[in-house]
Amino acid sequence: MAKRNPMTRHRLLLVLAAASCCAARPARADEGMWTFDHFPSAVAKAHDVEIGQPWLDRVRRSIVRLSGCTGSFVSASGLILTNHHCVESCLAQHSTREQSLIDTGVLAARREDELRCETQIADVLVELEEITAQVADATRGLEDRVAKERRRETLTSLEQRCEEASKKASNSLKCEAVTLYGGGQYWLYKYRRYTDLRLAFTPEDSIAAFGGDPDNFQFPRWCLDVALLRAYVDGRAATTPDHLTIDFAGPTAGEPVFVAGHPGSTDRQLTVPELLTLRNDVLPRELLLDSELRGRYIEFAKTGATAERIVRDDLNGLENSIKVERKLLDALLDESLLLRKHDQEAVLRLGVERDPALLKAIGDPWAKIEAAQRTQAAFGLRYRFLERAAGFDSELFRYARRLVRGTAERAKPNTARLREYTDSALPRIEQRLKASVPVYPELEELTLSFSLERMREWLGPDDPLVRRLLATESPDSLAAALVRDSKLADPALRMQLWNGGEPAVAASTDPMIELARSVDPEARALRKREEDEVEAVTELAHEAIAKARFAVLGTTVYPDATFTLRLNVGTVRGWDENGSPVAPFTTLGRLFERATGRAPFALPASWQQARTTLDLDTPFNLSTDNDIVGGNSGSPLIDAKGRIVGLIFDGNIHSIAGAYWFDADKNRAVAVVTAAIREALTKVYRATGLLAELGVRR
Amino acid sequence: MAKRNPMTRHRLLLVLAAASCCAARPARADEGMWTFDHFPSAVAKAHDVEIGQPWLDRVRRSIVRLSGCTGSFVSASGLILTNHHCVESCLAQHSTREQSLIDTGVLAARREDELRCETQIADVLVELEEITAQVADATRGLEDRVAKERRRETLTSLEQRCEEASKKASNSLKCEAVTLYGGGQYWLYKYRRYTDLRLAFTPEDSIAAFGGDPDNFQFPRWCLDVALLRAYVDGRAATTPDHLTIDFAGPTAGEPVFVAGHPGSTDRQLTVPELLTLRNDVLPRELLLDSELRGRYIEFAKTGATAERIVRDDLNGLENSIKVERKLLDALLDESLLLRKHDQEAVLRLGVERDPALLKAIGDPWAKIEAAQRTQAAFGLRYRFLERAAGFDSELFRYARRLVRGTAERAKPNTARLREYTDSALPRIEQRLKASVPVYPELEELTLSFSLERMREWLGPDDPLVRRLLATESPDSLAAALVRDSKLADPALRMQLWNGGEPAVAASTDPMIELARSVDPEARALRKREEDEVEAVTELAHEAIAKARFAVLGTTVYPDATFTLRLNVGTVRGWDENGSPVAPFTTLGRLFERATGRAPFALPASWQQARTTLDLDTPFNLSTDNDIVGGNSGSPLIDAKGRIVGLIFDGNIHSIAGAYWFDADKNRAVAVVTAAIREALTKVYRATGLLAELGVRR
Repeated sequence: MAKRNPMTRHRLLLVLAAASCCAARPARADEGMWTFDHFPSAVAKAHDVEIGQPWLDRVRRSIVRLSGCTGSFVSASGLILTNHHCVESCLAQHSTREQSLIDTGVLAARREDELRCETQIADVLVELEEITAQVADATRGLEDRVAKERRRETLTSLEQRCEEASKKASNSLKCEAVTLYGGGQYWLYKYRRYTDLRLAFTPEDSIAAFGGDPDNFQFPRWCLDVALLRAYVDGRAATTPDHLTIDFAGPTAGEPVFVAGHPGSTDRQLTVPELLTLRNDVLPRELLLDSELRGRYIEFAKTGATAERIVRDDLNGLENSIKVERKLLDALLDESLLLRKHDQEAVLRLGVERDPALLKAIGDPWAKIEAAQRTQAAFGLRYRFLERAAGFDSELFRYARRLVRGTAERAKPNTARLREYTDSALPRIEQRLKASVPVYPELEELTLSFSLERMREWLGPDDPLVRRLLATESPDSLAAALVRDSKLADPALRMQLWNGGEPAVAASTDPMIELARSVDPEARALRKREEDEVEAVTELAHEAIAKARFAVLGTTVYPDATFTLRLNVGTVRGWDENGSPVAPFTTLGRLFERATGRAPFALPASWQQARTTLDLDTPFNLSTDNDIVGGNSGSPLIDAKGRIVGLIFDGNIHSIAGAYWFDADKNRAVAVVTAAIREALTKVYRATGLLAELGVRR
Repeated sequence: MAKRNPMTRHRLLLVLAAASCCAARPARADEGMWTFDHFPSAVAKAHDVEIGQPWLDRVRRSIVRLSGCTGSFVSASGLILTNHHCVESCLAQHSTREQSLIDTGVLAARREDELRCETQIADVLVELEEITAQVADATRGLEDRVAKERRRETLTSLEQRCEEASKKASNSLKCEAVTLYGGGQYWLYKYRRYTDLRLAFTPEDSIAAFGGDPDNFQFPRWCLDVALLRAYVDGRAATTPDHLTIDFAGPTAGEPVFVAGHPGSTDRQLTVPELLTLRNDVLPRELLLDSELRGRYIEFAKTGATAERIVRDDLNGLENSIKVERKLLDALLDESLLLRKHDQEAVLRLGVERDPALLKAIGDPWAKIEAAQRTQAAFGLRYRFLERAAGFDSELFRYARRLVRGTAERAKPNTARLREYTDSALPRIEQRLKASVPVYPELEELTLSFSLERMREWLGPDDPLVRRLLATESPDSLAAALVRDSKLADPALRMQLWNGGEPAVAASTDPMIELARSVDPEARALRKREEDEVEAVTELAHEAIAKARFAVLGTTVYPDATFTLRLNVGTVRGWDENGSPVAPFTTLGRLFERATGRAPFALPASWQQARTTLDLDTPFNLSTDNDIVGGNSGSPLIDAKGRIVGLIFDGNIHSIAGAYWFDADKNRAVAVVTAAIREALTKVYRATGLLAELGVRR
């Protein structure tokens, strides 16, 4: 862990704060991941577009939240448009050692051939209810850790009451408590949930992710990162009158375009000490660990075609993470970013100091956060390896942890449980335990041995837990034994333990269950410490800062992304890269010129065969200045009339720093143009049924 | 590459500089890697020790410079004491797919069994001559790049004249031009060179590096990192009347101790913009690349015992680099270090501003360095991958590059050549080309494919060179073809090309030669740019800063380490680690308690068998506050009487930041106590002959 000198840092901060000269500005026209209840009409008007409540409502009801992604209904029969990379884990689950659906793609000839994604869900936001006042009432005047505990209980019981009420009204909504503005607002978001999702179409990985990791987060770009899922209810295609139509002409350069979706997480409101922890500790460490694992995966993949297939999905995800972490670190190493943050913080603090009532109400939350960062430094590594299970990177261990924790928590009253085991969360846990998903022992051994070895490296060979686990074993030998002897790959056994509850789990001699049991007390103690000494302090402090922000800057601000539904407006346009203009559109023609015949620049046979039939001038991918982030993958790009004109699948390399700030000059979203989707479905895949359903007449 | 905003940084620097309050202090008592011509007697006196010129001369003549390491003569028959890890590559060269001498260790029963290290040399510094004035005369008033060129020519021709003179005097010394104080001084260092070095003894790797990477750079520690080489002249053991005797009792806590050796490189005089380039660009990138390669090596090693053996040496070196780079980055991310550097720079700049003559003479070298850093950012990555060959990580490519470059350079006049191909350097190149060193194709493929793939990642798939090399190949397929078809693993072929000169190399159809040839023009152009636009400016600027330092701070300063001979004095002592005292000695007893039976905590059979005969209270390793750095490995720890009492092999984790500053509170050197060496040679290895030669009578 990086050695830090808090006094010296404090001195640096003071120096920098004293140098601040520029006020924090309100959000720029194209910046902002706005909630649907708070989309400022002025923002749309700045683009010469008027959108009203019906537009907003229809779009909201057409958007679905997928696991880590977004999609949108595009037919009245439950068809959902999203990205190939959003369904990659479903494709992996349906793959075998012999055949990878990621490679081959999927085109269901008939509805009954559509492939069920066992761990996928789709949520549609149907109602929003603000509960800020209730939370404030429940926690008023309480000391930090008591307040945190009470807030947790309050949110769980509000969710529970909401779901009970909805059940009575027979619409069975999922109710989720949502924290916005770092605690400035609390909401109940109510979703209609679809749990039966099936794959209708994906192209081959080699065209969906043409250019692979080298081209990831790059633009110009040539990817058909498209998938079509279908929601089912009671075994039949869902009826979805709320859906968006597709304009297969696509947009034009300079056209205003909206992105609706679920941006996952941004850190634009973090304080400088929090950013420094990311820069000095978190990101360098994660990059080291992830890079080594990348090397292990790649070398493992070279041991044979089977190995290559079974590791592909994990490797893709890992390489994506590495690129993101790299650019996040670059952003934080750029002093101009930290100076900007200092400036903004200084303006806010000055505003607080000039308002005695506000100052009295909120005190110095910045100092509290800085102190909490120092506290965390003392045990953060053990928390990460034990409680966050970074020392036990294995699907089997994750099942074991869920069974050990879940059965213990389930035995408690709902409001007393850890948040991830409340009644509201249990169905999702059961879905995952029950799902028949392949577990590859050789891959389990790889990740488990790697994580044990790195836990020993970072905690040191003399750490008590490391000594206990590795007294007579090496990371390799321990991982091999655990994976060989555990039977948790079997869903029936998992469900037997789950249904048997605490006694069944306590009696189990499965070695992975034994490991999870043996680590649990210490892991829970670390979590308690993290929650009491770090999170409780930090959350209340951010709540206070949010109040200050509303008071000083007004309410025309948007909350950090939290994987909740947001709307943003931008323009189809390129940018200037070191003096060279980047055009906003690519075409199909250049794709063929760029293919080398070797992965990741090899085209699938289907495209090589269709080449002569394709209109090579068809626009393929495009860039816009919409403000998006991971989680927006699969979001529709919508025109002023509410029609889909593109499918977001990535951002350019500058978009990664969007986690901390929006750079209107360089940050660009990247989407597939609808014209290319039609061209591919028509000429390459001849998906006649789907084309008809999407309203394409030939 | 990290995006940087020079204006903003400049602003930060100004702010920080304005806040500076503390003067740069002269070096602390224990700090300082002093040259032998300039060892301040006051420093020794502060330890109540008097050392005179005879002491200094005898020690200097007993120390040898090895490849990247230090050793010392310990008998009159050429016996050299150094570290196991300093001869690991020699052990690897003598290993085969079937047997690793790294594993088994070596004990030559008779002199004729000693194993020749074909690429090892040993240099003893016999004379020093200052040439600062000659260099100043040759470059006075010239523009930066012309001055650099002229300096290069001057140094080469002074070396040449020195060697010719020495040849006439029949003592055939190697003359090397040495730059100290970043250009504040130039010297000719004259060495007696031994080119026939043979291994007499090494223990098994499992005791030499007990604890492996987890314990590397840690203390307390239990390693017998010891090796004995012997220098030969004309096939007979060298006669070395200048040698040090060993005191096998070892030192006591609190005793003053000297370290003489060749610290490799420190960066204590770098300017803040240079440190920021390391922090923001160089170290994060190298850590990413090295960590991924580590993962590839580890996974490769798991494919079988042979693979494990052939990759071991490289993996050890790589893991060492990763730990160093990690702690260097941590040090630079700690603002207290950058603030200290700012303070020191501010004091120096203030001193310059107050001295109009000095100011006129040197101008603003800091601004020049900052500008050169910005210039470099534009092509630094390509320079690294093409000219530094980071995109072609392969022994075969390195042979090819050396043949292509070497034959071309050899055809030029000596003073017109690149510095690494002057007449003085050619014998060493020939030694390496001629050496029969195993090349493992599977390992070559691994590193070459990895480096090609990462070159594509960092330069981008549309870089012209990347496009040319990988137009129809993947990094894997290209690496496989190159390694399969190249014949450069054969020393006879290499010597044939070397002796055939440019025409032979031009006619060669060896694919690795073809690759090296095809990259060469662009690589040379990048080097020219680096030399003209970055190095020329930076070197002259550092020369100016060195002048300023002498003028403002006086001459009681020591130069940055440059792998030239240095002397330092310190004390046997532990330190305080987060409030817990660390004792300066470990004993043999704890070693056996700490063994797990699994690598890297498994003891060799020899030690398990000898366990009951050993005195478990024997001190094993110790820590001192000597100021050392990599390159000091194998340095003797010398008492006031000039006797060896320990063998330096590492530093503690805090010592790594010693690259940038010496932290007297925490920075510790780590050594093997001579008592443990005697105990091991006597009871574990029964090395009767060597013991007698070392003066141990039983």
